[in-house]
Amino acid sequence: VFIYRGSGSSSMESPMLNHHVSTALRDWVAIESDSSNVLKRPDLHRMMEMAAQKLRLMGGTVELVDIGEQELPDGQTLALPKVVTAQFGNDPNKHTVCVYGHVDVQPAKLEDGWATDPYNLTDINGNLYGRGASDNKAPVLAWIHAVEAYQALNMELPVNVKFVIEGMEETGSNGLDAMILAQRDTFFSDVDYIIISDCGWLSRRPALTYGTRGNCYFYAEVEGPKQDLHSGVYGGTVIEPMTDLVGILGECIFSPSGKILIPGIREAVAPLSDEEWRMYQDIQFDIDNYKNKIGVNELMYSNKVDLLAHMWRYPTVSIHGIEGAFSDPGTKTVIPAKVTAKFSIRQVPNMDPAMVKKQVTDYLHSVFAKRKSPNKLKVTMVIGAKPWLADTQHPLYDAGKAAVKRVFDMDPDLIREGGTIPIARTFQDVTGKSIIMMPIGGFDDGLHSQNEKMSRYNYIEGTKLFVAYLNEVSQIKHTSV
Amino acid sequence: VFIYRGSGSSSMESPMLNHHVSTALRDWVAIESDSSNVLKRPDLHRMMEMAAQKLRLMGGTVELVDIGEQELPDGQTLALPKVVTAQFGNDPNKHTVCVYGHVDVQPAKLEDGWATDPYNLTDINGNLYGRGASDNKAPVLAWIHAVEAYQALNMELPVNVKFVIEGMEETGSNGLDAMILAQRDTFFSDVDYIIISDCGWLSRRPALTYGTRGNCYFYAEVEGPKQDLHSGVYGGTVIEPMTDLVGILGECIFSPSGKILIPGIREAVAPLSDEEWRMYQDIQFDIDNYKNKIGVNELMYSNKVDLLAHMWRYPTVSIHGIEGAFSDPGTKTVIPAKVTAKFSIRQVPNMDPAMVKKQVTDYLHSVFAKRKSPNKLKVTMVIGAKPWLADTQHPLYDAGKAAVKRVFDMDPDLIREGGTIPIARTFQDVTGKSIIMMPIGGFDDGLHSQNEKMSRYNYIEGTKLFVAYLNEVSQIKHTSV
Repeated sequence: VFIYRGSGSSSMESPMLNHHVSTALRDWVAIESDSSNVLKRPDLHRMMEMAAQKLRLMGGTVELVDIGEQELPDGQTLALPKVVTAQFGNDPNKHTVCVYGHVDVQPAKLEDGWATDPYNLTDINGNLYGRGASDNKAPVLAWIHAVEAYQALNMELPVNVKFVIEGMEETGSNGLDAMILAQRDTFFSDVDYIIISDCGWLSRRPALTYGTRGNCYFYAEVEGPKQDLHSGVYGGTVIEPMTDLVGILGECIFSPSGKILIPGIREAVAPLSDEEWRMYQDIQFDIDNYKNKIGVNELMYSNKVDLLAHMWRYPTVSIHGIEGAFSDPGTKTVIPAKVTAKFSIRQVPNMDPAMVKKQVTDYLHSVFAKRKSPNKLKVTMVIGAKPWLADTQHPLYDAGKAAVKRVFDMDPDLIREGGTIPIARTFQDVTGKSIIMMPIGGFDDGLHSQNEKMSRYNYIEGTKLFVAYLNEVSQIKHTSV
Repeated sequence: VFIYRGSGSSSMESPMLNHHVSTALRDWVAIESDSSNVLKRPDLHRMMEMAAQKLRLMGGTVELVDIGEQELPDGQTLALPKVVTAQFGNDPNKHTVCVYGHVDVQPAKLEDGWATDPYNLTDINGNLYGRGASDNKAPVLAWIHAVEAYQALNMELPVNVKFVIEGMEETGSNGLDAMILAQRDTFFSDVDYIIISDCGWLSRRPALTYGTRGNCYFYAEVEGPKQDLHSGVYGGTVIEPMTDLVGILGECIFSPSGKILIPGIREAVAPLSDEEWRMYQDIQFDIDNYKNKIGVNELMYSNKVDLLAHMWRYPTVSIHGIEGAFSDPGTKTVIPAKVTAKFSIRQVPNMDPAMVKKQVTDYLHSVFAKRKSPNKLKVTMVIGAKPWLADTQHPLYDAGKAAVKRVFDMDPDLIREGGTIPIARTFQDVTGKSIIMMPIGGFDDGLHSQNEKMSRYNYIEGTKLFVAYLNEVSQIKHTSV
């Protein structure tokens, strides 16, 4: 086996590899594979094809799986990006792991406040800046490089390795659930373990992730006049949609303390156990550093356990913005005719998205009804992703700890993820396989923000971690599967 | 004098004139002279030069008056568009009128929902669609064409005609007040009457306008994290600026009935007099038509007098939008770091903008303080324009009635304007001259909205009205000035 540990001591550390990995990432980041913007769909298709081609050239058995169409709010349909599946090795005497990743990204524009072009990977002091660098293009490539490393050294893969790479993760993995269900008894039938690296560390200490929050994403649309109106000419005679929308959001959902006031939601949440409390106490989490990174003096809670609990295992609500209102610089004096608030509620055990949908919809309508407005309210849940929770006593996690120990010479933190990786829950529900999340992204990578990055260190050490992990997984006894 | 009345009977009705006027308007509309967008400032400068050149070619004495710079929120400065002044005739035995207009426009983008390119004047069934067509480029051109008509017929102008054309009206006429004050004893010293055509009719009946509302435009900025955050990763630990902003707007300012809940504002408003009530009763105003035009089934009030009163002489508040939040289509899961709500309160007698500024700022801060948020609130009043009210018994209005009678064969409605024309109040306060507003825009022109238009009918008959009005004004007895 390789020597994984320490800088400069490994065959992985060559300048050529360094160049190789950042070139591949540069090509991938250059594609604006924004899955939330229908106008970028051609780029997204191109991204899937590029990922498939990469795996084909490595000798994998590759398929681009058609997962159908999505329906747009206006009733039109649009082809979903195909899902890339690949297989390296099919030795029935070996374990088979399936690596999941995604190559679509969140929106990003230079004028949002990026210091560099978000689609031109830029190396500044060893950090590689670009949209999707950390979420999730570099981790997917790190898994690919791990397989390439075995190939380059003419070593047999210690386990069979499959890939499932999708292009709709950032908008709720539309079409993927059905694809997994359809291939449960074919592609997934011989998979023993599923590995996801679509997350990040909590600190400078490596981590293994055993839970994620789900997400219910809502549109609350208030429609009034048939077109935007001059606020001087019409103001005072028209019941304004923006007033209604801000009214129902502000008066009814969000208290100053951040609590969700919609009846039934908080009541559904599983209580915090003593064991969890103790686990959270032991996790490395520097509150001052966290504050500093965010740039605030005060957080919602002042102690570590409360903060981790509200990051991971309590629901939260965020208002992302309003579509249809004036959002540019300057002073337009307009009464917007149709405005759509976008907000999401992160799901945790034991909440149920179908129930949350009903609770939010009913409550907003009841509050809106009290206003006696002639405008029309439409509430839609456009994403409904469940949370996921793993058993940290599973051998998959022992193998993870051993691999981290080997590469980084320390024990990982066992953490959860506040964000949503819907696929984890689907894999659990549909295939019944065990799942581990093994992040390589840094705690300060700025996912979904301006200036997202992946450090060269995390990218390269992360690739080594994956190489080591494949070896550790091969040693799991079959009986414990 | 000409025969002004009736289609086909006048020299103004020739196809050539028709072509002439729409070509001039096409050229003017083609310039995106958006005064609220600092990136469009070069276009705005070009627009002012084009207006000046037009007046020069007609033989006017033209100046481009430097009115200095504006300070941007970030502390930078930007040159204001020069003000165009022009003079035709200086006979001391004649009255001198000064026509005021503006050639800057509100923002407009095709994707806002325009049926045609907003900067490519498009004739559909006799309506000329384009941003600024009605507000205020065609009315300014109609005044220019009125002078041209006298010139083309080799007739002496019955009054001296001056022009003041500015380029910052849509954002509060920055720099114009100081320019008027500076030229009070020079350019304005021999002006007897000021005429403004920056408004529209209330119905198909021509109108004279005797009042406008003012406008206090506010930015309420809430700033928290130093950059946008992933709502999954950070949601629950961070006090979100959007929650604070929606909270203070929704809980505190805007009741379902549209009333402004900020203490002191409603109390300052002059009570509705019996005389006003009677005047409003007589005005032609078709509520069903108004509803239909807006596309709503229900208005804030169900009777004519209440509607007119709340359109013209009561304050109103509109939330125009939020800058800094997610406003595109799609489902970005972001916690916006800095969000700025933009709202405005229309001013009426006897409100005072300085007082309103204090009332709004104090109240928002007091409500925000109750939230105990660590985020920062900054309230700025970026426009503070006073209302204006004229004496409808003045000979200037009698002349207006006569001109309308001559061209349209009917009596005009005496109306107010819900929007703001700040210059009216400034002229009144600084020069002490009498002012009339003489609109030619249609009641359905869609100012500040998608698909703004000016009809050929209003444009051409409006030009005739101005020709007739110059003649009527010349007959006002000097003693009555």
